[in-house]
Parts: sequence; C-alpha cells; structure tokens
Amino acid sequence: MTLPTPLTIGVFDSGFGGLTVLRALLPLIPYAHYIYLGDTARLPYGSKSHETIARYAVSSAKFLHEQGVNLLVVACNTATALALEDIQSALPIPVIGVVEPGANAAFAASKATKNNRVIPSEAQSAESRDPRILPEAATISPKNHVLVLATAATVQSRAYTQALNALNLEACEKACPLLVPLVEEGWIDHPVTDEVLKIYLTEALAAAPAAQTLLLGCTHYPLLEPAIHRTLASIGHPLTIIDSAQATAQAVAAHPALAQRSELKTQSCLFYATDSVEKFQRLGSNFLGQPVSEVRLIDLGG
Amino acid sequence: MTLPTPLTIGVFDSGFGGLTVLRALLPLIPYAHYIYLGDTARLPYGSKSHETIARYAVSSAKFLHEQGVNLLVVACNTATALALEDIQSALPIPVIGVVEPGANAAFAASKATKNNRVIPSEAQSAESRDPRILPEAATISPKNHVLVLATAATVQSRAYTQALNALNLEACEKACPLLVPLVEEGWIDHPVTDEVLKIYLTEALAAAPAAQTLLLGCTHYPLLEPAIHRTLASIGHPLTIIDSAQATAQAVAAHPALAQRSELKTQSCLFYATDSVEKFQRLGSNFLGQPVSEVRLIDLGG
Repeated sequence: MTLPTPLTIGVFDSGFGGLTVLRALLPLIPYAHYIYLGDTARLPYGSKSHETIARYAVSSAKFLHEQGVNLLVVACNTATALALEDIQSALPIPVIGVVEPGANAAFAASKATKNNRVIPSEAQSAESRDPRILPEAATISPKNHVLVLATAATVQSRAYTQALNALNLEACEKACPLLVPLVEEGWIDHPVTDEVLKIYLTEALAAAPAAQTLLLGCTHYPLLEPAIHRTLASIGHPLTIIDSAQATAQAVAAHPALAQRSELKTQSCLFYATDSVEKFQRLGSNFLGQPVSEVRLIDLGG
Repeated sequence: MTLPTPLTIGVFDSGFGGLTVLRALLPLIPYAHYIYLGDTARLPYGSKSHETIARYAVSSAKFLHEQGVNLLVVACNTATALALEDIQSALPIPVIGVVEPGANAAFAASKATKNNRVIPSEAQSAESRDPRILPEAATISPKNHVLVLATAATVQSRAYTQALNALNLEACEKACPLLVPLVEEGWIDHPVTDEVLKIYLTEALAAAPAAQTLLLGCTHYPLLEPAIHRTLASIGHPLTIIDSAQATAQAVAAHPALAQRSELKTQSCLFYATDSVEKFQRLGSNFLGQPVSEVRLIDLGG
C-alpha cells in the first residue's frame, strides 16, 4: 500500500503513556506530521471490559482517521490486546499495535541471550513472519520464559502469551495494577515504588525462575525502567528489559508503507485530549520528554 | 415534599465505593427498594475534569430517575463535589450528596472534642442549618482544623473546604491518588499501604499539626479505616475519624421526605453497572460487606 503524502502518523492511547511511543518515533521518523489522541476522559482502559475497550478504541481511531491520519499506531497495550482487529477492520489504513513489536523484540533478545550475540536483523524478519509458523524451533528452547508486566486487562487478554507462543517463547504475564497510578503520582524514583516492584517482580519470578527477559507491556512502564533495573539488582535477578514503546517505533519505521512515501522536510505534532487540556500538558511532558505544546479538547461522546 | 410509595432509593457512584454508603443505609432504612448504579465504564471520576464529571454524573442520575427512583444519593465524593448542583437541577426529586453530611459529622466531632462530650443532636441541627450562617462562632475555635483525605478532583473542587468553613472549621485537604488503586488491588492490610498512608498523613499533619479530626472524603477509604488508625498510632498522632459514608446514610435516614412515606415491609436491592458485571459482583461484595446478587449491564453511551 502506498501512503498518500503528506505522511501523517496518528498515535492513540487512553492517556499519556502512548507519548513514550511518540517520543521514540520522533527521532526515527523525523519528517512527518504526528497527531496524538489521548482518550483521557475514559482512561484507564486497563480495568475495563473487552467490549467497552473496543468501543472506546474504535471511536478514537475513527476520529484520528477523520483528521487525515494515513498510518495509525495503537500506542496502548490494552487497546492493542483487546481491540487491534476491531480497529483494523474499521479503518482503511495500516494500523500497528504494540504487542507484536514487543514480542518480536523479546524474541530477538532471547535469541541473543541464548547464542550470546545480538541479532537485530532477525527481530525485523520476525516482524513480517507469519505468526502461525513457529520460527526455528530447534535453536530456541521452549522453556525460555519471557516475563511480561502489564495491566490487568492486557494480562487477561493473553495477547502477549499468544504473540510469544507464536515465536516459540513461553510467557509469564503479571498484572501490575499499581504501577500506572504510581507513575501518575510522580513516584518514579521512590522507595514505595521500589517496594511495589519488588513484590510484583518476586511473584512473577517465582512462577518463571529461569526467565532472562522482561517485557514492559504497558507504555507507562518505560518511566520506571531505572527503578526496575535497581529492584532486579536488589533481588539478585538481572533481566534483559524490552521496552515495547521503543520496539513499536522501530516496527513503524520499518513498515513497507513508509518506504514509498514522498519525504516531508518538516515535523509537526498536534495533540488532542478528551479531558483536561491543562493536565495533559502538565503530565504529558514527563512522558514525551519535552514540552507538550498545543493540546486541543475533543468530545468523543463518552 | 411527600415521596410517592414505594420508597425507591437510588445510590450512584462512579464505581464500587458507593456500596459503602449502601451498606450503611440498609440497616438504617430497612424497608425500601434500592437501585445502585456503578458507572464503572467511565471510572475513575477522581482524575477527570469538572465538565466531564458533571456530564457523566447527570447522565447516570437521569438513568436512575428513569428506573423509578424517588430519592437519590450521590454516593461519590467527586461527583458530589463537582456536580451536585447539576444533578439537583436535572432531577425533580431530593438529591443528597456525601460532602455536607461528612462536614456536619466533622462539626459534631470537633464540638465534642472541644467540650469533651458528644452532642449528636447538634450534628443533626447543623444539617438543616443555612450554611451561610456561621454556627456558634464563640464556642468553636476557627483554628480547629479538619484533615480531609480525598481524590485529586475532590480536593481541587474545594467542596469540603467550603462546607467546613461554613461551619467555622478550617479544612486541610490532602489528595491521595494511590489509595483507591491500593484498595482495588486488595492491599487493605498491607505494609505498602501503611507506608503510603504514613507519607500522606505525615504531609497532611505537617500542614495542620493541631488537627483533631480526620474526614474520609472518598467512599473507598472506609475499607482502610483500620490501616489509618494503625498508621496514626505509629506516628503518634491519633485523630477522630469521620466516615462520610456513615454520615451520609444518617442524613438520608433523617431527611424530611422520608417521614411522610408509607412503610414498605420488604427490602430489595438491584444493581446496575456500565462495565463488567462479573467484576462488579466480585469486587463489590468487599465494599457491600455481603454478596452482590443481581447485576445488570447498562450502556450509558460513554
């Protein structure tokens, strides 16, 4: 599929977390228009049911399409896990979620760990592989567990388990409902957060003591990466950490649809939120890593 | 206003917390039909803007009125703080929120503390008092601070400050965004919750070291009352704890509209939720203190 110019990439999340995906996209695809939608009036998706999440996600995606977006990134693990197919069915443009790229990056990391070398090109090839075909089962141990930290709804969906199993990896998913509130409280570097992480990680590792890879299955969690490294060191179980936000940005940059586009010479970002614009600007800059400039309020009827 | 029989009391909250108000109502008003609505698809209200909360709350209240409710309890601090007047304007029935009863109970407790005696009847009279008239300023010190723990949106609304100031009490409101997630994680009796409470209470007491009364300004917080007592003891600052859920149930029972009703001889409870019925039943029973039987799913278009 050839994208019409100008390249306009929509990035959608229930709140601010997807800004970590946008943050990773900006240097990788510098010449594009970006339109970000945070469905903040209806967040968090993570504690809601499949039907409700699908309804919210499709209406949000349609809004972005109406704004002229010609490639959509579902930068929300919960919405990807529960509504990616609904969104893909509803829109006539490429729609990329965060689960598949995260699983592929975990595959590459596991393989690198197994063989004691990094093979980034194999992660790329895994991305376009038919997930029904198990890759190179002879060289990857089925006992190679990947720990996945995510919201309750993402875990219940078993989306990461399915994506990892398709790559001949075993998944151990752990719901971590307190991590998003802790990030939003600003307790990024805080003893309470370290204690909560210690509890969650100890429980997860008890179920998969041989795990060597940890996949951050929520776009809020990259902000906790230093705390997670610190906690893993304190419990004596270092793991390779895969950030699904970074992995997704790389998958978007490698998407075939982008290869045939006319290059823009500028970059622009426009932000929409369904709730308080002021709060979006204030909290969002922590996730984006730079000031969030223009934010427009949009009512999606929720 | 005379209520038509049968007496049907609507209880509305964004989620499960309002079930602590229903739990307090059931023994106080045993012969009534109760219809509870948890707007779980759009929770939590506490982190959203005034306009969004008012829109959600009015649509929820109208739904309950359509079900035949003839007295409505807004069993949600955030919705009361930000949307009570909107709901009262939208419905032709008595609408009672949780802020005013909580403030009145704090008034009675402060007075009892000052005079070293309990005067429950004065709390009742304070309830029907014109809030613009300051009560007995000569006997109540304006320096008698009341600590209020609540969600960010309730604190930002300053609803408790206004209600307590009208009773010649000073308020020190403290936003506690992690307490609802901790309750919903089930960490009611947990060292992490004690540590979070210690941080919040120490910060609140630093701003109001002379406080003698603590008002729980969120319907989730009664489940943390033992932990709050324990934490206050550990930091050497015991306080009289006022549970706004209990205070609200007493205000409903004392409402003039109920005095003229025909007595029912039975009690019934019907529950509606805007998201997962299964989750409502599972979590709700913790708040209600008994099994939540029939829950119906309702779509309010969010």
